[in-house]
Amino acid sequence: MPEITKVALDVMGGDNAPVEMVKGAVDAVNLNENIVVYLVGSKEDIDRELAKYTYPENRVEVVYSTEVIETAEPPVMAVRKKKDSSIVRGLMLVKDGTCDAFVSAGSSGAVLVGGQLLIGRIKGVERPPLAPLIPTSKGVSLLVDCGANVDARPNHLLQFAKMGSIYMEHVIGVKNPKVGILNIGAEEDKGNALVKETFPLLQSASGINFVGSVEARDVCDGNVDVIVCEAFAGNVCLKMLEGVAKTLLREVKAGMLSTLRGKIGAMLVAPGLKKSLKKFDASEYGGAPLLGLKGLVVKTHGSSKAKEVKNSILQCVSFKEGRISDRIREQIDMNE
Amino acid sequence: MPEITKVALDVMGGDNAPVEMVKGAVDAVNLNENIVVYLVGSKEDIDRELAKYTYPENRVEVVYSTEVIETAEPPVMAVRKKKDSSIVRGLMLVKDGTCDAFVSAGSSGAVLVGGQLLIGRIKGVERPPLAPLIPTSKGVSLLVDCGANVDARPNHLLQFAKMGSIYMEHVIGVKNPKVGILNIGAEEDKGNALVKETFPLLQSASGINFVGSVEARDVCDGNVDVIVCEAFAGNVCLKMLEGVAKTLLREVKAGMLSTLRGKIGAMLVAPGLKKSLKKFDASEYGGAPLLGLKGLVVKTHGSSKAKEVKNSILQCVSFKEGRISDRIREQIDMNE
Repeated sequence: MPEITKVALDVMGGDNAPVEMVKGAVDAVNLNENIVVYLVGSKEDIDRELAKYTYPENRVEVVYSTEVIETAEPPVMAVRKKKDSSIVRGLMLVKDGTCDAFVSAGSSGAVLVGGQLLIGRIKGVERPPLAPLIPTSKGVSLLVDCGANVDARPNHLLQFAKMGSIYMEHVIGVKNPKVGILNIGAEEDKGNALVKETFPLLQSASGINFVGSVEARDVCDGNVDVIVCEAFAGNVCLKMLEGVAKTLLREVKAGMLSTLRGKIGAMLVAPGLKKSLKKFDASEYGGAPLLGLKGLVVKTHGSSKAKEVKNSILQCVSFKEGRISDRIREQIDMNE
Repeated sequence: MPEITKVALDVMGGDNAPVEMVKGAVDAVNLNENIVVYLVGSKEDIDRELAKYTYPENRVEVVYSTEVIETAEPPVMAVRKKKDSSIVRGLMLVKDGTCDAFVSAGSSGAVLVGGQLLIGRIKGVERPPLAPLIPTSKGVSLLVDCGANVDARPNHLLQFAKMGSIYMEHVIGVKNPKVGILNIGAEEDKGNALVKETFPLLQSASGINFVGSVEARDVCDGNVDVIVCEAFAGNVCLKMLEGVAKTLLREVKAGMLSTLRGKIGAMLVAPGLKKSLKKFDASEYGGAPLLGLKGLVVKTHGSSKAKEVKNSILQCVSFKEGRISDRIREQIDMNE
């Protein structure tokens, strides 16, 4: 019998909560019979939204909570005070072993802080990074860290490389994934102090396939599977990818539709174009796992709709089947 | 009589040297009769390329040099040793007052280092930043710094804000330009140590219109005129913009041309699309000035073709007419 993956979902987090959260959960359980979702949120919202769908009732559990952590709240304080918030209750379901994973589109700060405070880091892991998959011409690459640890130190980046490699190999299925460090030039002497100190650590590390620097302009080419960086630069990298894509596609559309001739043409190019651009749709890849915790925590975009929520939940299955946390524990332990 | 702007051009630098460099110079003098270009490079290359064109001979000067600084050479050493390189000779033309500006598509490191060592900083300017104009939905924004000063300190970023504001107001014509700091969240408490320390300095600075944080995902919206950042993050920002645009447009094209139907449609949408995307073409805006030197130094892309070279030369006219160096001197002095 295949293993069941149990996922706690924050019904209250994100711009499209609770409607798209519950829809995503229902879609996930309808698609994969080895998933059980625990919906965590207000009774009123959950009951009303669930009533809209048909789904296997034995695979949707509800956990009612009364509080919500807002995006603007200082995270540490919020996690400590709002014990009955959907984020804290969801994380506790992972901590007490009820669930394998927690998925939230809510406050990044609260999810990151809460994950560390409540679930805790794997022994030896110094700073759990947020590691989204980003679309490239060749498929996907993992960007570690994209927002959890600003002002990280070289040893943290080394751990990001190891954890990222495990994720790419055992969740995405890339054999011997290539690791690059985000840099401002291809030569070894380029970079800021952090990159220059980290570079030799990555070169001499065992268990990773380090290939050198990767410039931001080449990130989308997909020649590197794991891109290691400090969170500020990683966040700029990720958000530029999203922002430029959004802006350019808007311009492409406006340009095509600016004339009658263009409008007719647009109808003709639409099917091919959609297919080609689908792979650049971040929602296809689910959310970003917080690597190195004792349980899985996945942060999805604040703007997530049902598709991304569903994919984030499905991602938890690969994470569990790939025994990512065990592998990280073994790899980090071995090196300490 | 209008003022003449004299520009020294590195004929040997960049992937498309010398052909596109000389072509760009000829295009510039043919377009604007108040420009004199000094072509700096090998006699053989300059003579051969110039022979191809018709141009006002009194507005093209030649300065023969025998050495070339390669991209991979350590910049400080190269600038010191290769006294007869096109970069050193070109910079010396600015230093000795023969020219107002130097334009190069060659080694960024050598141009940045050489600019500081040979031309020198305006008194009070601590670190001259490289400040390219980047395309946005609303026009252009200035990104300072995008590669000159990794590991900058808060006071450097404050100076970037002041110099960038002067540039946007007096070269681009934006009244009271809005200044934002590149950040990983909109709230004031977000950011790394550098951003958190710089934020209050920008808030209390006189003479700039500081509007707060700007996230990378909003850079292309163009709501901020001057985006201040440390060079590593700025470089990631700039290179992501270029890389994502290149990749996405390739995907758009491939998607449209994947079927016969799409190919017909592509012919119909092409004119409108080209117009719409032209504003996202970095070569329209010339190169990036190195702000805060006693003379103007402009670094253009290594991949520059004649159009970008021409636009970089034309840009020097606005820079001179806007008295940017004088204004920076006054503004920085006033605050020291």
